[in-house]
Amino acid sequence: MAKRELPFQSRQEFHEEGHRVFLPHLSVDCVIFGFHNDALKVLLLKWKQGPWCLPGGFIKHRESIDQSANRILKERTGLDSIFLEQFYAFGDPAREKGKRVKGAWIGKRFITIGYYALVEYSQVFPQPDLLSSECRWWDVDEVPELIYDHKEIMNKALYTLRLSLNDHPVGYNLLPEKFTMPQLQKLYETILGEPLDRRNFQKQMLSLNLLIRLKERKTGGAHKAPFLYKFDKKRYSSALQTGLRISF
Amino acid sequence: MAKRELPFQSRQEFHEEGHRVFLPHLSVDCVIFGFHNDALKVLLLKWKQGPWCLPGGFIKHRESIDQSANRILKERTGLDSIFLEQFYAFGDPAREKGKRVKGAWIGKRFITIGYYALVEYSQVFPQPDLLSSECRWWDVDEVPELIYDHKEIMNKALYTLRLSLNDHPVGYNLLPEKFTMPQLQKLYETILGEPLDRRNFQKQMLSLNLLIRLKERKTGGAHKAPFLYKFDKKRYSSALQTGLRISF
Repeated sequence: MAKRELPFQSRQEFHEEGHRVFLPHLSVDCVIFGFHNDALKVLLLKWKQGPWCLPGGFIKHRESIDQSANRILKERTGLDSIFLEQFYAFGDPAREKGKRVKGAWIGKRFITIGYYALVEYSQVFPQPDLLSSECRWWDVDEVPELIYDHKEIMNKALYTLRLSLNDHPVGYNLLPEKFTMPQLQKLYETILGEPLDRRNFQKQMLSLNLLIRLKERKTGGAHKAPFLYKFDKKRYSSALQTGLRISF
Repeated sequence: MAKRELPFQSRQEFHEEGHRVFLPHLSVDCVIFGFHNDALKVLLLKWKQGPWCLPGGFIKHRESIDQSANRILKERTGLDSIFLEQFYAFGDPAREKGKRVKGAWIGKRFITIGYYALVEYSQVFPQPDLLSSECRWWDVDEVPELIYDHKEIMNKALYTLRLSLNDHPVGYNLLPEKFTMPQLQKLYETILGEPLDRRNFQKQMLSLNLLIRLKERKTGGAHKAPFLYKFDKKRYSSALQTGLRISF
């Protein structure tokens, strides 16, 4: 279990002297979405005697922002090897209004850079760090009150995730290796939060040329056995890199 | 013509004491694309006795990042009322490697937040500021060497602009009020940098329900007069806000 190593003797020293280790005025927040059993969740931390928040932290003087995001996520939740995508910087000078922690360094205005990811949440094991009393998944529709503008950050990440379905494939590592078209559709519906037309979905999906239809069919159901598919790994990776073919 | 008002007595004082006015370690860079006569251009500044660069600047202590981006663009190029969209923060600690300006404040590492816009470039009149000797449009395929990672920032903006065609309508304020389908297709082709299939484009475009076909036709050409279209302003605005219908 990864515990956050504070490079300071006390919390007060960290609040006063953080600028020796971290860049001033800059933070990173991570929005980790989890998919499992047709539900979309988001990973939140609860500060000891405090509110719920996104897992976040600060940028070391010699780190790239991407490195910071990965380190912060690991230190604060134990999650490792997650592909994080930067999506937006939040810079309203009033975003922490009236709620800033005291301290020469940490009491200043912070612009935060948001990262997000989508993971299969039964395969990751979040753990709270020393600053937090809890670290757990919440249904995206049932998120409690969050600190600062963290709800807005989460909503922007969700909007970005939904839009990304237009441009990038999704499903690998979220679905079993072999899956049916209804399983794939359910994944898209869960992310989008709305039902989709079955025929249109199948047509669009097949037109992307990312799927290989297998000879075997799913067995055991009451209805006619549906086809099984798997992703064409090469085409899938290539579409992740370059984006899906522009629709026009 | 908007000239940049430096709140300092000298350039040296600005380089040393900028932190009194601006946040440390943070900058903003603007990638302004221009469309005109079927060409895609980008607006660049040339530092006096220095390299070409994107119009950029710093964030005042009480400004939002959006406000900074708009102020910077106006101060550095004279452009006003441009709808700027934030797209990415660039934070490699080596991004200005070996090329930082000297000064206690400005000589530090800067993370820059990128904004972009697409405008009809015959309708804007860029003007260099006091720090620059030139401010002009360059064809995106003929951009000269740029300072730091500005070429990478420009390319990421271009990639974002291209992907945005999947999610958002484009054309209003770039085309005449009444236009033909080939004119609209040429706009898309110019942004994407590649030819598109005529039939498929028309089919996709019409399926978005953003166009109103007019009774009058374009006259004067050698061929059969093509239909004229205009945007349905209400649907266009709504699609700008919420994004185009997800393709699935």
